Order: sequence, then structure tokens, then C-alpha cells
Amino acid sequence: MQDVPSLVAAAREGRPRAVARLISLVEGASPQLREVMAALAPLAGNAYVVGLTGSPGVGKSTSTSALVSAYRRQGKRVGVLAVDPSSPFSGGALLGDRVRMSDHASDPGVYIRSMATRGHLGGLAWAAPQAVRVLDAAGCDVVLVETVGVGQSEVEIASQADTSVVLLAPGMGDGIQAAKAGILEIGDVYVVNKADRDGADATARELNHMLGLGESRGPGDWRPPIVKTVAARGEGIDEVVEALEKHRAWMEERGELAARRLARASREVETIAVTALRERIADLHGDRRLGALAERIVSGDLDPYRAADSLVEALAES
Amino acid sequence: MQDVPSLVAAAREGRPRAVARLISLVEGASPQLREVMAALAPLAGNAYVVGLTGSPGVGKSTSTSALVSAYRRQGKRVGVLAVDPSSPFSGGALLGDRVRMSDHASDPGVYIRSMATRGHLGGLAWAAPQAVRVLDAAGCDVVLVETVGVGQSEVEIASQADTSVVLLAPGMGDGIQAAKAGILEIGDVYVVNKADRDGADATARELNHMLGLGESRGPGDWRPPIVKTVAARGEGIDEVVEALEKHRAWMEERGELAARRLARASREVETIAVTALRERIADLHGDRRLGALAERIVSGDLDPYRAADSLVEALAES
Repeated sequence: MQDVPSLVAAAREGRPRAVARLISLVEGASPQLREVMAALAPLAGNAYVVGLTGSPGVGKSTSTSALVSAYRRQGKRVGVLAVDPSSPFSGGALLGDRVRMSDHASDPGVYIRSMATRGHLGGLAWAAPQAVRVLDAAGCDVVLVETVGVGQSEVEIASQADTSVVLLAPGMGDGIQAAKAGILEIGDVYVVNKADRDGADATARELNHMLGLGESRGPGDWRPPIVKTVAARGEGIDEVVEALEKHRAWMEERGELAARRLARASREVETIAVTALRERIADLHGDRRLGALAERIVSGDLDPYRAADSLVEALAES
Repeated sequence: MQDVPSLVAAAREGRPRAVARLISLVEGASPQLREVMAALAPLAGNAYVVGLTGSPGVGKSTSTSALVSAYRRQGKRVGVLAVDPSSPFSGGALLGDRVRMSDHASDPGVYIRSMATRGHLGGLAWAAPQAVRVLDAAGCDVVLVETVGVGQSEVEIASQADTSVVLLAPGMGDGIQAAKAGILEIGDVYVVNKADRDGADATARELNHMLGLGESRGPGDWRPPIVKTVAARGEGIDEVVEALEKHRAWMEERGELAARRLARASREVETIAVTALRERIADLHGDRRLGALAERIVSGDLDPYRAADSLVEALAES
């Protein structure tokens, strides 16, 4: 295996296998993880990170692929991270439609990576920012992070993007209703895809109405645009890119981009610290301490709060 | 306000307002939280906890209400906890259809409580077991925990039940496909509701096929039954209760019930301990330490792992 400095140098030169290897190292929590992250730290921070979320069936992969093409026409290097938090147990992502991305498989200016949640709550929150950091440090100008559905994990992922795009499609009214509480707060740009289908205008109108019901905005505040697309034919994609550029310019003007990145770094550190503490607890579990506490709780001899106290104390001593 | 011992005594006597007050105390992380949990510890452990999950529109509230009626006919005291993890930001649960439960509002043998996620990942995992513990200690024979959707949070909730019921409805094929990786692993009993609609048999067949594709089962292993219901008319509900009783008997025979409760207590302690540690980190945040670390990460001066190390060290010293 190549050493970390050589891998980083190769990734910077645009070698896709070096990028893939670095992502595997950070994703798998390898022994080299810390060395990789230390080497990448001074190189990252240039990529514009765009999150894309939406229910299954809205055409996320097709839209992502069309956005990749648009950015490539501008000569930009593009990274794609496709994350699937819908499979909490299997560890395998349901990414059959990833084949649509094969248009870009032979393009040396595009890196595509799929990622599942690794089976535990918070796993995605932990691994995804590290993979974004690799793509960023490798010289990508834009990193597209595509997630399935709108739920807590997806919201957490969206909060790690500079700009969040929420995709909808006509005829998924139930989905909009179910998800509306979530999506109204995470979208910087809304896309109604499959706009050639019946009901596209109604979906856009409903969305516009729902966004209007949200918090009142001041004169300089960002009003999320709603863009209609037919991603499969590339229609409306330039308008999406334009909306993204406008949002980026607005964020830079307001200091919002720096604020978001600072908040993202805070959450990242916190997540890593909590994961480390969780692992220490797991070590104590191997030590039978947690099991013994659980037995006392089930028997009614101890309540979970006092049990947690003794666990935290044990951590401090470890 | 009543003191905790009086509240606990009143809850044990079946006073609904005392039960409600105790749940508010544990849900809101009040100063009395620890006192309440200590008082409840020796009283809990008798309730049979049934989790119900399913996508919006499958008739979860109606099914829950029908199950409440069935258990009431058996003379059992029933607690219902309706949790809604779909609204990560607003803190308000989308529980409009909770009105269907009003059939039971005047029944002193039934306690009904709604709960939202409190806006942070893991919030539900933290609060729901405490509320279940109150209902258990108050003398409920059965506690039904109803959650919306099948995602990571819901899976976590399901893992806190003795028996998990997954509800489906005909004509939601997309939902099944999207959710299948998750639901195949959490259901002890499957219910195809709205079985008077077209496609109910096809849904049951598809589900049966999907379950067969799962891990091979030994001769004494549990094979999740699929029950067809029309909950709005009470049809099939007795069969659901029967399936639940069979699963409970199977678990008791195999020592599985004790094992699940032990695992649940372990997770509960771990979650409380991690929450406590997270709060200590938040305290450090107020201390500007996390903010300063985040600034160094954004500037490329520090990587997030070394930042997390210094945070964990600071925790140990605090």
C-alpha cells in the first residue's frame, strides 16, 4: 500500500484511484485515518458543497448527473457523494440507479462515490463530512452530496452542505405532506423535476404556498427559488446552476458561507468527540460493566440515570 | 405542584393527570427528572411494550385505536405513546389524526400521549423510553408505542419494544420498495391494513416473498406472521392480538424477552450517558473552546480529529 503523503499527492494530481483509496481510509476508520485527516486539513476548504435531497422517485440521480454535466461544461472538477441512510441494518446501499452516473465514469474530472450508513445512528453524520473533505482536498471545485429521502439523517447531511437543494416531483402529494415540516427548513433551492408531467405547476404552487407560510423574511433575506426541470432531457439544469451561484453569492456577501462552515466544523468535531466517547463506553461494555448495570435496571434495583452517572464516572477514570 | 412521591402514588391509583404530569417531568428533562426515575425504577417492568411503525397513510392511528379497544375488552390497562420523528426542526408533532384516539379519551383505563422529537437527533431515543417507563410503572399492562415512517429513528424506537409491528397498506408499492431494507429486519408481526382494497393480497404476497429472502431460520426460530386487517371496521384485530400473544409466549419460552429488555436497558443507559457527555461538550461550547477549534479547522490549521482529541481531554478535566 502507498503511504499517505504519496496518496495525497496522487489525489491532488487528479488520480481517481488515489482519491478512492483515501475515501476508503477515512470511511473505514482505518489506522491511517488520523494521518489522512491531518494531511488533508491544509488542502481543504475550496470546494463548494451542494446537498441534494428528495424522496425516492423524484429523479435525484438523473438530476445529479445533469448537474455534473453542467459543471463539467464550465471546466470544473466535480465530486459526487451518494449517501443512502435508508438501510440501517444491512450496511449495503440501495444504489441500483447509480448506473445512471455511468455517463461520467470515464471522465477524469469527476469522482463518484457511494456510501451507506454503516448501520448505526450517527454513522453517516460521522463518515460523510470526512469523505467530502477528501474530495475537497483532492481539488474538486464542486462536491454534490446526494441523499435519499428527507428524514433526520438527511437533514443532518443537508446541514453539512453550503447550499441545500430539495427535489420534488409532481404527483407525490402525500410525500410533500409527510415531509413538509422537514423540507421547508432545509431547502436553499427547490427543484420540481419531471416538470413535463401533469401536476408540475400544482406542485410548484403548493410548495410556493408552503414556503410563504414559513417565517417572515426581511428585505435582504434569502427567498428560496423554485426551479422546474426535466433532468432526463437536461431542461432547466442551467437555471438550477444559476440559482446555486446566486445563493453562493448571497452567502458570501452576508458572511453566511463562513458562518455555515464554522457551524459545520463545530458539529464535525462534536460528532467525532461523541463517537470517541461512545467507543469508550463500548469498551466498558466489553468489560461487563454496562451489562451489570442493565441487569440492575431490569430488576428495578437501579434507575437508568444513576446507572448513566456511574458509567460517566467510569469513563472519567478510564 | 405535588411532590414526586405523591404524584407516583396517584399515578399508581390510576389518576390520568398524575400520569400526564410525570411524563411531562421526564420528557422535559426537569430538575425532578432524576427523582422521578428513581421512584419509578422498582415499579416498572410489568408492561408488555408493543411498537407500531408504518408509512403515513397505512392507518396506524386507526389500528392503534382498534388494538386499544381489543385490549380493553380483555380488561387490560393500556398506555399509548404516539411519537413523531418526521419533524426535526419545529418541535411540533403532526398529529392531526390523533383525534381518532378520542374514542378512548374518557376511558380511565387508557392513557394517551403524543411526543415530538424535540429537534435533535437522538432526542426521541432519549425521551421515549422514559415515557414508556412512566406508563409501565403507572400500572399499564400493555404500552403501544406508535411511530411515523420507517427510518433510523423509528428503527431505534422499534428496538425498544418487546414486540414490533410493521403496518403496510395496499397500493403503496413504492414505499415498500424504499423501506424494505429496514422493515424486513424490525417486524415481529406484519399487518396489511385496508385489506378490503385492491392489491391487499399482492402486498401480502410481496411481503411474504421479501421475508422469505431474508436470513434462513432454524426450526425453533420465529417466523413473522402477516395479518390482514380492516382496522376502521375492527376486522382482523383479534388476529393481531393473537399474533402478539404468540410472539410474547415464544420470547418468554426462549429467554428472548429477558434478553431484549436487557439490551434495551443497556442502550438506554448508554444514550443517557452520551447525552450527558454531549451536554458537557455544549457547556464547553459556551466556553468558546469549540468555536475556537472550529475556526482553526476552517482555516486548515487543525484537522477535526486532533480537535476532537482536545475536546475529549477538556471533558476529562472538567
